[in-house]
Amino acid sequence: MTTIGFVGLGIMGSPMAAHLAAAGHTVRGYDRSAPAVEKLVAAGGIAAANTAEAVRGAEVVITMLPADEQVREVGGEVIAEAEPGLLLIDMSTVRPDTATWLAESAHRKGIRVLDAPVSGGQAGAERAALSIMVGGSAADFTAARGLFEVLGATIVHVGPTGSGQVVKAANQLVVGGILGLVSEAIVLLEATGVDPVAGLDVLAGGLAANRVLDLKRAAMIARQFQPGFRIDLHHKDMGIALAAARQAEVALPLTALVAQLVAAARAMGHGGLDHSALLTVVEALSGRS
Amino acid sequence: MTTIGFVGLGIMGSPMAAHLAAAGHTVRGYDRSAPAVEKLVAAGGIAAANTAEAVRGAEVVITMLPADEQVREVGGEVIAEAEPGLLLIDMSTVRPDTATWLAESAHRKGIRVLDAPVSGGQAGAERAALSIMVGGSAADFTAARGLFEVLGATIVHVGPTGSGQVVKAANQLVVGGILGLVSEAIVLLEATGVDPVAGLDVLAGGLAANRVLDLKRAAMIARQFQPGFRIDLHHKDMGIALAAARQAEVALPLTALVAQLVAAARAMGHGGLDHSALLTVVEALSGRS
Amino acid sequence: MTTIGFVGLGIMGSPMAAHLAAAGHTVRGYDRSAPAVEKLVAAGGIAAANTAEAVRGAEVVITMLPADEQVREVGGEVIAEAEPGLLLIDMSTVRPDTATWLAESAHRKGIRVLDAPVSGGQAGAERAALSIMVGGSAADFTAARGLFEVLGATIVHVGPTGSGQVVKAANQLVVGGILGLVSEAIVLLEATGVDPVAGLDVLAGGLAANRVLDLKRAAMIARQFQPGFRIDLHHKDMGIALAAARQAEVALPLTALVAQLVAAARAMGHGGLDHSALLTVVEALSGRS
Amino acid sequence: MTTIGFVGLGIMGSPMAAHLAAAGHTVRGYDRSAPAVEKLVAAGGIAAANTAEAVRGAEVVITMLPADEQVREVGGEVIAEAEPGLLLIDMSTVRPDTATWLAESAHRKGIRVLDAPVSGGQAGAERAALSIMVGGSAADFTAARGLFEVLGATIVHVGPTGSGQVVKAANQLVVGGILGLVSEAIVLLEATGVDPVAGLDVLAGGLAANRVLDLKRAAMIARQFQPGFRIDLHHKDMGIALAAARQAEVALPLTALVAQLVAAARAMGHGGLDHSALLTVVEALSGRS
Repeated sequence: MTTIGFVGLGIMGSPMAAHLAAAGHTVRGYDRSAPAVEKLVAAGGIAAANTAEAVRGAEVVITMLPADEQVREVGGEVIAEAEPGLLLIDMSTVRPDTATWLAESAHRKGIRVLDAPVSGGQAGAERAALSIMVGGSAADFTAARGLFEVLGATIVHVGPTGSGQVVKAANQLVVGGILGLVSEAIVLLEATGVDPVAGLDVLAGGLAANRVLDLKRAAMIARQFQPGFRIDLHHKDMGIALAAARQAEVALPLTALVAQLVAAARAMGHGGLDHSALLTVVEALSGRS
Repeated sequence: MTTIGFVGLGIMGSPMAAHLAAAGHTVRGYDRSAPAVEKLVAAGGIAAANTAEAVRGAEVVITMLPADEQVREVGGEVIAEAEPGLLLIDMSTVRPDTATWLAESAHRKGIRVLDAPVSGGQAGAERAALSIMVGGSAADFTAARGLFEVLGATIVHVGPTGSGQVVKAANQLVVGGILGLVSEAIVLLEATGVDPVAGLDVLAGGLAANRVLDLKRAAMIARQFQPGFRIDLHHKDMGIALAAARQAEVALPLTALVAQLVAAARAMGHGGLDHSALLTVVEALSGRS
Repeated sequence: MTTIGFVGLGIMGSPMAAHLAAAGHTVRGYDRSAPAVEKLVAAGGIAAANTAEAVRGAEVVITMLPADEQVREVGGEVIAEAEPGLLLIDMSTVRPDTATWLAESAHRKGIRVLDAPVSGGQAGAERAALSIMVGGSAADFTAARGLFEVLGATIVHVGPTGSGQVVKAANQLVVGGILGLVSEAIVLLEATGVDPVAGLDVLAGGLAANRVLDLKRAAMIARQFQPGFRIDLHHKDMGIALAAARQAEVALPLTALVAQLVAAARAMGHGGLDHSALLTVVEALSGRS
Repeated sequence: MTTIGFVGLGIMGSPMAAHLAAAGHTVRGYDRSAPAVEKLVAAGGIAAANTAEAVRGAEVVITMLPADEQVREVGGEVIAEAEPGLLLIDMSTVRPDTATWLAESAHRKGIRVLDAPVSGGQAGAERAALSIMVGGSAADFTAARGLFEVLGATIVHVGPTGSGQVVKAANQLVVGGILGLVSEAIVLLEATGVDPVAGLDVLAGGLAANRVLDLKRAAMIARQFQPGFRIDLHHKDMGIALAAARQAEVALPLTALVAQLVAAARAMGHGGLDHSALLTVVEALSGRS
């Protein structure tokens, strides 16, 4: 069993920390929100008063934070506090250059780091069915695998530091793009008087088949956009994808256009809806909203 | 058993007509290419010297032609020659307004019409595993169903005249778009030093999962672009999708951009490669070709 | 002085034909609308009962028609009726392949053809200040120059048959694109609390300077979108630009995206407004409408 | 006469500082590059050994630095060193949120701040003909105006803190977009056999007229891409424009696509060429390179 410091007990972090505690690990958790910490205690964890206290005595520290800014701030605190040998696993979704910065800062103090963002959302976290994309050394991945298996169903070591974040970015650009394409297909079908249910059934049976169609087409046709994964979060993730492209010096025209459609959904006031609400943007552009 | 006139015995039409003959139907076929007609005869069909001869005495006429221009020309000949009550099934991929024109022209003479484009390509035609998207009346669809079942695996009546073409257009815009998105993901992964095999494996396990990934990711990573479905044909289909959008008075920004990427693949000399060669365009844009 | 048949006496053709009559030419005009023909008679022209009558005895026939379909139909009638040696000048804005078809059809009967689309709109037609882009032979251009000088201020022979239409397409894609870019600049300025008047004044003083800014920025900031040149017409012209690109086998990504924004303006119900109403699309996408 | 600290004596800063010294101001300059400082001394300025020394005793500090990172670093040093009442003018091109951060940090110490990015490039700096876009308070703008007049020809106070950077971003998105549109026009003209010189002459005479056409069309047609303003710098500026849009919560689809075309030019190895080399990207996409 491992002594784990866990910082960031939000919608994702809370069930993840609880799963680790339930698996028998010692989980000392901290979050700015006191009720979040109390919830972990109720689930068998230990309350920490701040990041430093969560780090002290831990073999592994896991961070699950909203964005780059928090990872730089909390990551800095962890590194300042930690003893050499600690394994720091950042499971937040951030820019690859933030992952690189974190790893370089940590390595100077003898601290090991993995970037391990996840996909699968709140439901995946609660059901311990996340996909986990891990960047860092093979040795550190091996050391962490047992913990990852408590949290997720698909666990892949994809490459060196930052690779986890790049794969997450690639995932989100493909998901966002497919949502946009399915939205355009629905608008075209409906505008020409074709039953979208029958039309998308055909698409789902051929080369156009995809999981977005499988899981979301009925809700999209019914305009039911309860999240799921919110537009606000996908907007953040498209920003990361474009930042990763800029850093990698590649040009991704579809990704760039998808990012603007997601930004439009948010600007139109749909940031709190499921990302399938991209459909509302194509509708607005087609005068059908 | 049905007496069928079949006009257009190319890569797709040839195996389709042969399947119908093998199923016991009387198939009288015509193509401008004499060897194509001989091939049908060898498969149990009957040679027609021209379109008129294929039409004469037929209960059903099937056309499988390259593009709108040929459908208007041959369709006009069929209508001129046919007796009232004939069922004309155009299985070519053309613009919805061509399907509408064909149906309106035919109805004036008491001829029934279905638009029934297919997806699945040469392999699907040869294995009788096509997806067939049918527009027209329910009665005509019912009458034709037995023939469709000889040719395809997924057979859906999607709506009134033109609906088959609209669904085919929707299918092709989604397929083209996903090929573009997967291409952008591959370029991003490779440019950042992430193993694309491992990276795409993760994508294929989550919400980004799609059939293009399943069937084509290994070949794309290996840059093996033997067709399959050629860029030239997808370029034609993206033109149809945009024409359908214009007719429907909707705006489809992703479709429009995908169409330019496909046009670029063709302009760069890759028209004869599989449509997954969209990857070469993203590579060129990223200075990686 | 020249005997001219003039077919198409709409918003553009009416003042053009009147200028030619006022310059002393014999102008025999036809339009489907009887009042349009009467208006020409009042301006000194002669009424023709149909296209054939306008063509008979003419040295030059000018057509000024809404779109490709009418040019093919009326052009066919002119060619059928005309004597060898006639000079047919199509001043409509159509696809380059329509211009090529018209010229090839005419040449077979010994009829000379120029494609000579214009820019400058209704105001330019009324003030005889049009820009005229002419495709065809140098000899035919020289023969027609005197007539063009009655109608326009900028008259350029840009190349062989179809070249006039290509230059018009290039003009419209640049104008549409600049309208879109200025719209995005206005939305960015306003959303950040910057006075758009002051901001655009700076742009108009540097490398970003352009005639759209000069002529339209005040009206755009005030949301005054009386035409001017209507979105409906620009939508038609963007379709021509993309058709020209497809025929030329080039990829024009910005043009394709601009075409969708123009299509969106139309779909949103703004087809009758000035093309600067592209601003409303960017506003809608930014949740600011 | 004013005592000025000037930090950042590169291609832009060097002639600017020299102009201020020549106008009789006391200019104490610092740059990491010793020769740059010596050049200022030769032009009548005074050498500073570091930022702190440039700040000491100054009434006004001007910074002219490459990017956000340096502005945050040097700006922090200036604020740490300065006495209340100092006027800090950042003339670098950076993100609006960096301008906001700088102003807020400075205001807490009683230091006044203007953001005052410029356009006009090296030539504009050398000829004291820059356009200067100023954000900040009216009083501070008035205080600085005399200095700006030594450096530029167009000087506009566009709004509160950050506004200068937003206007610069708007300028660069319009310039980049027009370069892309003119590139697409050239490729379309050339691919259809139309003389681009004659074609663009027509465009320059109508509503498509713009300064990019006036200044750069001959060089673009001749494929002469000596800078001028480098692709590398425009790539940085498009990143700022998109960051500004994200911060402002607006969606700018054309800007996003232009940014990818500029990124492509850079990825293709043309970062050191003039930004009109965007033409090479459209050529590559059209198979004409």
